[in-house]
Amino acid sequence: MTRTIRMTVAYDGTGFHGWAAQRDPQLRTVAGVLHDHLERILGDRPRLTVAGRTDAGVHARGNVISFPVQGRVTAVRLARALNAALAPEVVVRDAAEVASTFSARFSATAREYAYRIDTAPVPDPFTARFVWHRPGDLHLPSMRAAARTLAGEHDFASFCRHPGAGRSTVRRLERATVRRDGDLFALGFRADAFLHQMVRSLVAAIVGVGRGAATIDELARILAAADRHASKGRLAPPRGLTLERVVYGRRPEGRPATSGRR
Amino acid sequence: MTRTIRMTVAYDGTGFHGWAAQRDPQLRTVAGVLHDHLERILGDRPRLTVAGRTDAGVHARGNVISFPVQGRVTAVRLARALNAALAPEVVVRDAAEVASTFSARFSATAREYAYRIDTAPVPDPFTARFVWHRPGDLHLPSMRAAARTLAGEHDFASFCRHPGAGRSTVRRLERATVRRDGDLFALGFRADAFLHQMVRSLVAAIVGVGRGAATIDELARILAAADRHASKGRLAPPRGLTLERVVYGRRPEGRPATSGRR
Repeated sequence: MTRTIRMTVAYDGTGFHGWAAQRDPQLRTVAGVLHDHLERILGDRPRLTVAGRTDAGVHARGNVISFPVQGRVTAVRLARALNAALAPEVVVRDAAEVASTFSARFSATAREYAYRIDTAPVPDPFTARFVWHRPGDLHLPSMRAAARTLAGEHDFASFCRHPGAGRSTVRRLERATVRRDGDLFALGFRADAFLHQMVRSLVAAIVGVGRGAATIDELARILAAADRHASKGRLAPPRGLTLERVVYGRRPEGRPATSGRR
Repeated sequence: MTRTIRMTVAYDGTGFHGWAAQRDPQLRTVAGVLHDHLERILGDRPRLTVAGRTDAGVHARGNVISFPVQGRVTAVRLARALNAALAPEVVVRDAAEVASTFSARFSATAREYAYRIDTAPVPDPFTARFVWHRPGDLHLPSMRAAARTLAGEHDFASFCRHPGAGRSTVRRLERATVRRDGDLFALGFRADAFLHQMVRSLVAAIVGVGRGAATIDELARILAAADRHASKGRLAPPRGLTLERVVYGRRPEGRPATSGRR
């Protein structure tokens, strides 16, 4: 009998070439190490479905996977075996058997990312793996105005690397926030789904406004252009980005599930 | 003309065999990489004096070094060159020229260490390098009582690995505190100076009380025994330990400076 397992996973993305290898199968990926260890336990390689296919160097506190298993192995035993092998670099935070209709990717109704920036003159060895160290002050009110400009339902083609032929680049950015705590800035993003490299592209644009290199009007024109060239393809580095949480719940009416690529 | 430079340094100790190599000169140490880069800049290898000779795997947020330099190179230029080469693993947080009478080790009047313990069921990839992951609850009031028992001036021979022949093992533990924030425990220690592996030995003893394996009376007897065998040589792992701060200021009357070994 086939059953479906759901797991919430956290990882330090520093040592990984992202969630899934795109070209070179030799590169170490999060999906790769999970696959390898699940194969040892289960005897075969389950097809993993993931909510957020994070890029190389991007971290997760609450990514979600689902996969089918045969036989009687429990979700808790699988989680313990994976943690014994992979923690603390990759950790299964919880695991449960779920309905076979559940998909970590297509059942998700929202994804939440955080991006952290350290503006202190020198980096901090204790946080360096998880922040973008970018010395020099940023103007908080301007960054908040930039975030407000970007929030809402828009064609985000200007902030997407590989939209995919014929795929819609319209997304609903439900929340874009900027908080400051001393030298540390934390940017938060919540959307139904994100385009490829969308968060890092939005962060680069907001930082551009925060350091005075662009105005809110210019940002609004880049957004309206719906063209990658308008944003000049600028990206904040991956180390500052963390997939914080995936939300499963009622979808607002009339909204189909979209891809979790970001 | 010889001048004296003081630097405050922070480091992630994970990749180092401690501050100074004890036996094998091939092992990577914090002093070793600082020496190597200072030699490149200055043309010779300055003799470094350090406030806290941290062990393998132990971190520092505010360790202090001092060393003599010849010629006209400024403290700020030296700090920039070191940061360009070593950050974010090792970072110079500030640097200044000081009086030639200053010694990072012998001028220090107190050292402050923090020890962090994560008691959650699974480790956290975001903090794992800097905490001891020890799943299972600990009893906060008992740990606080244990810390109070240890505070004050005592012969700490029961909590010292290598006292050194004829050296005093009396220290004044000015502060020993235990705080809790959810699953995370933070233990704080401040003393004029610490013995070798004293903090990790005290942490192991306090955790022993917190998990119910020892009583306060037993802890008091171990302290009074002033004998390493009384504590059975138990040590908390190095990764949870951070040298937070070194204090330079007026020494209480009649107190000679003591070694910074811990």
